[in-house]
Amino acid sequence: MSENKNCRTIETCFTPVLFPHILTKENFIVIIVDILRATTAICTAFGNGAVEVIPVAKIEETKKYRGLGYKVAGERDGIVINGADFGNSPFNFTKENVNGEKIVITTTNGTQTIEIAKHCDAVVLGAFSNINVLARWLSEKNKNIVILCSGWKNKFNIEDTIFAGALIERLQLLSEYNVNCDSSIAALDLWLLAKNHVLQYVEKASHRHRLKKLGLDDVLEYCFTEDTTSVIPILENGKLVNAL
Amino acid sequence: MSENKNCRTIETCFTPVLFPHILTKENFIVIIVDILRATTAICTAFGNGAVEVIPVAKIEETKKYRGLGYKVAGERDGIVINGADFGNSPFNFTKENVNGEKIVITTTNGTQTIEIAKHCDAVVLGAFSNINVLARWLSEKNKNIVILCSGWKNKFNIEDTIFAGALIERLQLLSEYNVNCDSSIAALDLWLLAKNHVLQYVEKASHRHRLKKLGLDDVLEYCFTEDTTSVIPILENGKLVNAL
Repeated sequence: MSENKNCRTIETCFTPVLFPHILTKENFIVIIVDILRATTAICTAFGNGAVEVIPVAKIEETKKYRGLGYKVAGERDGIVINGADFGNSPFNFTKENVNGEKIVITTTNGTQTIEIAKHCDAVVLGAFSNINVLARWLSEKNKNIVILCSGWKNKFNIEDTIFAGALIERLQLLSEYNVNCDSSIAALDLWLLAKNHVLQYVEKASHRHRLKKLGLDDVLEYCFTEDTTSVIPILENGKLVNAL
Repeated sequence: MSENKNCRTIETCFTPVLFPHILTKENFIVIIVDILRATTAICTAFGNGAVEVIPVAKIEETKKYRGLGYKVAGERDGIVINGADFGNSPFNFTKENVNGEKIVITTTNGTQTIEIAKHCDAVVLGAFSNINVLARWLSEKNKNIVILCSGWKNKFNIEDTIFAGALIERLQLLSEYNVNCDSSIAALDLWLLAKNHVLQYVEKASHRHRLKKLGLDDVLEYCFTEDTTSVIPILENGKLVNAL
């Protein structure tokens, strides 16, 4: 393990409940990950011209935005919530649906995770959809990295973890980082195991089967496709906007 | 993913802070893991004839047992605590030191983990030291399995995780279990990656380097050696005894 004390660090947090225990205490960017499907969907929304996305943790909070002209996207456990314009499938966030629009969104895991991190200095969203543009953007900042996986109801999940590994792989290619965090090391190893047959690997994941049971797994291939958008959703005053 | 609803399940918990979020709610045995070094040391103690080991979370609690004739083993962050007979290196738990003795022990991570699980119906300790005898014993019980890794100060660690994977590998060889838990799937994959060169793999682990800095890494090879003892430490009324 080579260690350069001047290097930026990369730390991975497998579920939100572990976030208070991170060792990185200053000068860091949090990358929120919820591959199936919140962060993939929000990247798609910006890719298709959404102006602003407000993530809210509670269903009730969507109501006040409806009156303000926002479109409402929301679900719990994969089921579209009452009164929403659509659920959280990336396929809902088409140009027709979102171009020029403001959107309020609530999801089972992803928006809860954003809520937990919202007081941090810098919060961005990561997905395979924006992985390489995100990696380049991060490598140009003089900031430590904390990858915060949403998991599934505070449990570790495979899809967010292999994304963390894929992002770490890119960051280490682009710049010098210390990776002294066992979670990051494990995430990278799992990604290296998965990368040549990602969809086959993800067959193992429990959430993939949860989506299948709900008939929501049509998005699977899309959620693991790299670079479908060139956007970086960044949190500014409680609203996500495109940093690029 | 084949699923038999009558099968016992295996769930893995990467750190104690995730334990309240386990999905297995009944009829389970908790296997506490702290490879470097608490559960390895306690298996060694029983292997060398200790009669009873009381795990306590706080240093102060060791004091009352000293007056009752217990030997005291304890450390924090790898440093032996004041007043202890020895620290938590498995090499301290020799026949000369522990045969016929009662011991009270407090450690940085492992004894805290036992504290968290102590209200569960059945709590046993696992280490590479007792892995195969433990796997056989578990496979003969009609119980679900929850593997509770101690981690390092509530962070995920590699050494406990690959042990979880190694135990899952044995359990699946011996009997039929459902492994629908992403943590267990990841632990097994990391173990399969590590198993043919475990010590080399563990070079990556941050705690291995923490021990090295403290000069406490002489135990490394021993801690990853399988079946050095034929014991199963089990918690009974707050005391660990040998179940065999």
